[in-house]
Amino acid sequence: MEAAAKAAPAVSFDTSPERYRHWKLAMDGAVATLSMDVQEDAGLSPDYKLKLNSYDLGVDVELADAIQRLRFEHPEVHAVIITSLKERVFCAGANIFMLRGSTHAWKVNFCKFTNETRLAIEDASQHSGIKFLAALNGICAGGGYELALACDEIILVDDGNSAVSLPETPLLGVLPGTGGLTRVVDKRKVRRDLADVFGTVAEGVKGKRAVEWRLVDAVYPTSQFRARVAARAQELAATSDRPAAGPGIALTPIRPTVTDSTVSYSAVTLDIDRGKRVATLTVSGPGPGQPSTIDEILSAGDQFWPLRAFRELDDALLRLRVMEPLIGTIVVKTCGDQDAVLAVDQLLFDHQQHWLVREIIHFMKRTLKRMDLTSRSFFALIEPGSGFAGSLFELALAADRSYMLDDPEAENAIALSPMNGGLLKMSNGLTRLETRFLAEPQRVDALLQRTGSFTAEEALEEGLVSFAPDELDWDDEVRLAVESRAALSPDALTGMEANLRFAGPETMETKIFGRLTAWQNWIFIRPNAVGAKGALTAYGSQSRPEFDFNRT
Amino acid sequence: MEAAAKAAPAVSFDTSPERYRHWKLAMDGAVATLSMDVQEDAGLSPDYKLKLNSYDLGVDVELADAIQRLRFEHPEVHAVIITSLKERVFCAGANIFMLRGSTHAWKVNFCKFTNETRLAIEDASQHSGIKFLAALNGICAGGGYELALACDEIILVDDGNSAVSLPETPLLGVLPGTGGLTRVVDKRKVRRDLADVFGTVAEGVKGKRAVEWRLVDAVYPTSQFRARVAARAQELAATSDRPAAGPGIALTPIRPTVTDSTVSYSAVTLDIDRGKRVATLTVSGPGPGQPSTIDEILSAGDQFWPLRAFRELDDALLRLRVMEPLIGTIVVKTCGDQDAVLAVDQLLFDHQQHWLVREIIHFMKRTLKRMDLTSRSFFALIEPGSGFAGSLFELALAADRSYMLDDPEAENAIALSPMNGGLLKMSNGLTRLETRFLAEPQRVDALLQRTGSFTAEEALEEGLVSFAPDELDWDDEVRLAVESRAALSPDALTGMEANLRFAGPETMETKIFGRLTAWQNWIFIRPNAVGAKGALTAYGSQSRPEFDFNRT
Repeated sequence: MEAAAKAAPAVSFDTSPERYRHWKLAMDGAVATLSMDVQEDAGLSPDYKLKLNSYDLGVDVELADAIQRLRFEHPEVHAVIITSLKERVFCAGANIFMLRGSTHAWKVNFCKFTNETRLAIEDASQHSGIKFLAALNGICAGGGYELALACDEIILVDDGNSAVSLPETPLLGVLPGTGGLTRVVDKRKVRRDLADVFGTVAEGVKGKRAVEWRLVDAVYPTSQFRARVAARAQELAATSDRPAAGPGIALTPIRPTVTDSTVSYSAVTLDIDRGKRVATLTVSGPGPGQPSTIDEILSAGDQFWPLRAFRELDDALLRLRVMEPLIGTIVVKTCGDQDAVLAVDQLLFDHQQHWLVREIIHFMKRTLKRMDLTSRSFFALIEPGSGFAGSLFELALAADRSYMLDDPEAENAIALSPMNGGLLKMSNGLTRLETRFLAEPQRVDALLQRTGSFTAEEALEEGLVSFAPDELDWDDEVRLAVESRAALSPDALTGMEANLRFAGPETMETKIFGRLTAWQNWIFIRPNAVGAKGALTAYGSQSRPEFDFNRT
Repeated sequence: MEAAAKAAPAVSFDTSPERYRHWKLAMDGAVATLSMDVQEDAGLSPDYKLKLNSYDLGVDVELADAIQRLRFEHPEVHAVIITSLKERVFCAGANIFMLRGSTHAWKVNFCKFTNETRLAIEDASQHSGIKFLAALNGICAGGGYELALACDEIILVDDGNSAVSLPETPLLGVLPGTGGLTRVVDKRKVRRDLADVFGTVAEGVKGKRAVEWRLVDAVYPTSQFRARVAARAQELAATSDRPAAGPGIALTPIRPTVTDSTVSYSAVTLDIDRGKRVATLTVSGPGPGQPSTIDEILSAGDQFWPLRAFRELDDALLRLRVMEPLIGTIVVKTCGDQDAVLAVDQLLFDHQQHWLVREIIHFMKRTLKRMDLTSRSFFALIEPGSGFAGSLFELALAADRSYMLDDPEAENAIALSPMNGGLLKMSNGLTRLETRFLAEPQRVDALLQRTGSFTAEEALEEGLVSFAPDELDWDDEVRLAVESRAALSPDALTGMEANLRFAGPETMETKIFGRLTAWQNWIFIRPNAVGAKGALTAYGSQSRPEFDFNRT
């Protein structure tokens, strides 16, 4: 049933505008225009052509990079128009031939990354004051419309032909899985019966009806389209609280040293043991000489420890997802001076209103969410010399379990900071401490008000770590935990972790990664989609799909 | 990958205590005791033996019936002890050999029904004032613990051996999919790292640790167990607002007339066209001579129209799910006197505080939820003579789409009633009108305040129906809609409908049917569970499972 297991194409998550193949970024004062212009022959694999602005992971890596750079490098940008340079085509969505030729795991990771990118657009709107306007200059299908849905507003050209559509169900037998179904009814609040029709009509909806059904905000004839888009973008830009002028800071390339078993960055190291299917991820705390003022932060730029360390962590997590599918368990360690982490945390907390500090904090938040959403088991090991304090302690809170050595001979502590208090929220809208202590919400405030660090005994007593073995038990207990985890069904673990990590309220974001993604993953392995006669397999061929019509 | 497609075992959803094979119901004043005593050889299929109080659908049908009867037949029951008559065994969960031998669709429908039964326990606690106490007299594994989780409180015997456990992931490579993962972290608010450990340790957790981890509310040594359970049940019973004494009303058997293509009840008819994969479900409104007082309602008993009609509707939906897997589209019609429906609705609304009326209303609510959760497409057809008013109009609101004939020559109207206003809430905690008009919440109140019926034109204008074709277009438009629906991938429709039907907030209930169920369905077709060397396949054999360790 599964596509023949090909080697996953090589992909780098590090790019920059001068290297973009598929997007053009143009600045005009407070308004940037990000234009899709996908190069057909520049897909990650030669097996498909990216026609009609269809996309693969490589296209989306560039989009994610552009959004990220607008936040850090261009504080003067207050609104972004997302449009296309192709005549009469906005975007045809994810490339079907790419999907069809991909393994199940690749499909799932591709969708996860594209979902994260769209959520990053919404995060930039909500938290950075950058408003996004989708200017649909032509056909806008599937993932193309899902990209538009992630924007604050959608303007569609009214040329008698251009429509928005979600043709996945009628044409491909799969879902619009990049948030489409969720955003249609939950964000744009399209009536569910109209959404039902929309989701089954391959040709989509255009013109006045698209506005009436709330699928787009406005339609304009071709003659007025560009002017109306430009005017609306100016209006959106005027609502921003970003600085009137730059400069921003440059995001320089992330270039780890890679060997067969290690990936080494400046503050992050990944040690991979494929035999045991375990990787060790170590994050180092800040060294001496960190900034203590906004000017020094601006001057340090992307070398300021939290930004540098979390960018490297983000890259390491993405590498693990895509390039190391057999690594099931990730042992998380930290090292460094906890007081230095706490000092950086306090600096970030004190200056959280400054545009750059705000960006750094939200980036840390998004990276931690990426960890929450990574379908591997994380076990945090807290040993003497660890840097598990404040924002770095979020790594232990994000882990599925934590083990803290309780050795009277070796000082071993953890600490909290104001950064554990509300700036690094999970997808469910709660902090990791709030999610952890759902049963005792009052405990969260008490913990945050306490000053000073926690010994292993105290951390265990306060529920901040899972276990605190003593020095006699430590090696065996940790080894057994890691080994027994590695022996379990990877699918059951993925499902279990996806359910246990997101206790408490659900948000549009958790609905996308919970309900929508889980159903899509199910459909992605059903014969009706990917079997020899499934709809995804049959697409673009002469043959029509044949379904097993049993309903499940 | 899938188990050989056997004919699904015959199952009736109609039972009664004197016919129970697996449960004993005993009354003692305000406290009832429902004891599991599964007969090994009385499973639905001879292919497996129901050892150690493990269960199949037949066992759960009896449980659902018992809960239902306690509500209607025994208003004097204020608390229920759920326990077992087997020595040292409470319940071993769903029968593994049954699961292994079942088709994917059967597994999914089995889990859906058992989930609905557990939610019915919580519904009885929340809305009927019947408190449930799980008295775990022995080992309590998997679905057994999930049943306990649905109770208000859990008491576990502390005999050095009895533990609660969710061994699905470590032993079977699947999830505890009957709400287990969700209720552990969301209802009992077990810390997520402890839940992670609990979910991977086959032997479970017992004694004091089970209390400390919040997995159970109390443990007592064998010598005290029964007395403590009895005492606590009395305390729980004392919190109830139910009548001090009966009598209740009898729920008589539902005995439809069944032919190859029809199932006919007194107020419900199901016409099945397997060639087109379409069924027509018709519900008739009340006839003349309906009760107008509480005494008359009590006297009418289960023949009172709303109870009779919705019991039949519930049975019809369950039959469709389990016995008609190829029917993908269900055309929903009603007939009868709308004023009579509105009169019954007003009577129910006026007496909603009375214990029996309360039960009837909550039963209607649960039946409509059963429809929301049925993975078939529902299209409501509103034609002259229809009974789509008030509570019956909920059927149109629950449908994926509605079509209303707009023919100037034929009077055709719909109407709302107070029953559309808040008594028949969906799983998401909103009414169907609120879910429909998420974008315009003020419209809901305006519609409910309006008196009088809506013509097709008005209903369309107010957004109460999807389409209102005129008499020239009606036949073609409806036929095309039904035909084109039947041609789509049944899996994609299941996923699409599951996402579009539950816009708005998520609740523990929607999390169970969204996030948890969707992941479980995914795992249920993965080779790591059901392949030749999968864990579910290997269970109980001499061979160990072999996994593809790629993480997804």
